[in-house]
Amino acid sequence: MKTTIYDVAREAGVSITTVSKVINNTGKISEKTKKKVFKSMEQLNYVPSQVATALTGKKTDTIGLLVPDVSNPFYAAMVRQIEDEAHLRGMSVIVCSTDYDSEKESKYVELLKRKQVDGFIVSSGFSKVELLDQLIEDGIPIIMLAQDNPDKINAVSVDDFKGGYLATSHLLSYGHRNIAIISEQVMSGDLRIYGYRAAHDERKIPINEENIFKTRASLENGKRLVKKLFEKGNNPTAVFACNDLLAVGVIQGAREMGKRIPEDLSVIGFDDTILATITVPGLTTVSQPIGDMARKTLETLVRQIKGEYEGVERTLFMPTLVVRGTTSRLT
Amino acid sequence: MKTTIYDVAREAGVSITTVSKVINNTGKISEKTKKKVFKSMEQLNYVPSQVATALTGKKTDTIGLLVPDVSNPFYAAMVRQIEDEAHLRGMSVIVCSTDYDSEKESKYVELLKRKQVDGFIVSSGFSKVELLDQLIEDGIPIIMLAQDNPDKINAVSVDDFKGGYLATSHLLSYGHRNIAIISEQVMSGDLRIYGYRAAHDERKIPINEENIFKTRASLENGKRLVKKLFEKGNNPTAVFACNDLLAVGVIQGAREMGKRIPEDLSVIGFDDTILATITVPGLTTVSQPIGDMARKTLETLVRQIKGEYEGVERTLFMPTLVVRGTTSRLT
Repeated sequence: MKTTIYDVAREAGVSITTVSKVINNTGKISEKTKKKVFKSMEQLNYVPSQVATALTGKKTDTIGLLVPDVSNPFYAAMVRQIEDEAHLRGMSVIVCSTDYDSEKESKYVELLKRKQVDGFIVSSGFSKVELLDQLIEDGIPIIMLAQDNPDKINAVSVDDFKGGYLATSHLLSYGHRNIAIISEQVMSGDLRIYGYRAAHDERKIPINEENIFKTRASLENGKRLVKKLFEKGNNPTAVFACNDLLAVGVIQGAREMGKRIPEDLSVIGFDDTILATITVPGLTTVSQPIGDMARKTLETLVRQIKGEYEGVERTLFMPTLVVRGTTSRLT
Repeated sequence: MKTTIYDVAREAGVSITTVSKVINNTGKISEKTKKKVFKSMEQLNYVPSQVATALTGKKTDTIGLLVPDVSNPFYAAMVRQIEDEAHLRGMSVIVCSTDYDSEKESKYVELLKRKQVDGFIVSSGFSKVELLDQLIEDGIPIIMLAQDNPDKINAVSVDDFKGGYLATSHLLSYGHRNIAIISEQVMSGDLRIYGYRAAHDERKIPINEENIFKTRASLENGKRLVKKLFEKGNNPTAVFACNDLLAVGVIQGAREMGKRIPEDLSVIGFDDTILATITVPGLTTVSQPIGDMARKTLETLVRQIKGEYEGVERTLFMPTLVVRGTTSRLT
């Protein structure tokens, strides 16, 4: 088995970030630590990858931004904010839409490595954790945006748990007791589901596990799943769709079944995109402060690029509930 | 006055594209023409810019994409298509949102030149023509997308004139005679207005010049202008908004004034973005085949980068009318 940066870190008793810094000669590392790391590398016969060494000292002022799909209004707004923050710092942004597809992720990561981008902003997660590990091993600055991965690398996100809690509490406070949730198959989606659970548990309200769905963000999936909910006889009085695209799909699907919004079905989204102001009535949703998130992401990434980081930092921004017309009290 | 590539072209009796190719040693140029160009350069004491010479033979497999605003759903969808087409060819895309601001345009063009991108896709136009001229002079492959500039460089766009004609003809065929148009302050916007005129002229229907507006694409401007139309007493029975964002703003503003859509006011948009399927009723709009446009743009740009172009090529795609619920017959 090939020796990895993890083996070196374990052997030397330091973090992989520290090993990466020693290899790349960035950041402030004590001579003692450097010695330990080099000794472990020698003992384990560890050879740093070419990319890591090639990158040393060479700046391209370009960052790679991986998103699931730039044509999704939430990511379009986020790309715009990241782009503005990057340009303020004289950097430019290469945008890659991965569709949560592991092949595309690998392909784009290779492409961006060839271009020797200074760092990665990953807003799409990685289907295969090996890809992330390889980037860390290569010593490439990387930050997760709106995706949790707090153990290994820096991350900026909204508090997804809190967002799920806020949305569900709003529905519960309106008297709803049969609330379906349609979330995404990503870690932030799971956190929103936990928030949904917490809001129920706090009020000792039981949850019907058949009301919990995970899918990919699209209008079609929202439409399809709300129909399924009624066809299966779940008959929820409210749906918490974990992003605005899904929420709009839910509204459209429910209407096709003759349901009135919000009289027959309350719907709440997540993200507060342009879509939320365009539905009639306006969509009640959970807002993410993407301007603040983009600023923090760039600040953190630039400090990583300069080698100014020691530990792993995770910044959570508070979401806020925006009540519009798609939710109403259960009568 | 500094000698420019135009002076050399005039002196040699050839196009600036030819001069650029001779300088950059790309494309097939006869020895006779080369001699003529070099002679003119000598006579006029013309020194090619650094960028042009620096670029020779060096490929970065990166292209710069200038759009007005990536968070506008139309441009978000376009960026995604361009990105996919570029990645198919192993190229990546740096996205820059210019807001039609001449300072931002200059700044981003400088940034992209420093990064030695292989070519530019400009979907935002240039507020100052000097910026475009400088790029042409530098010999950087450039193509206009959804923006006309047919005289000097390659362009791919929808037939905006035809789109304006289609939308207006639809409203006229529904019996409307008092149709306002809200267009954008760009060349494609003007072409849509000419299409609006042509549809009227063909039917010998007079136009009230006070029904013609030009503005920037935003919900707010759509809202503001539809209110102005009624406050000024123009009282149109239909509004042709030259993109979906403006159209949604028109719908929202009209509703705030108590107008029903389409009973009191028919509204038609342009672009067929995700917004058009989300309004209630669905937005009647003019669709652009952005997938085809993106493919053609990349094909053309790659051929330019390879130096395979002689003349200036302009590709127009046909728009199509998508009738949904926001337009109805005048009763």
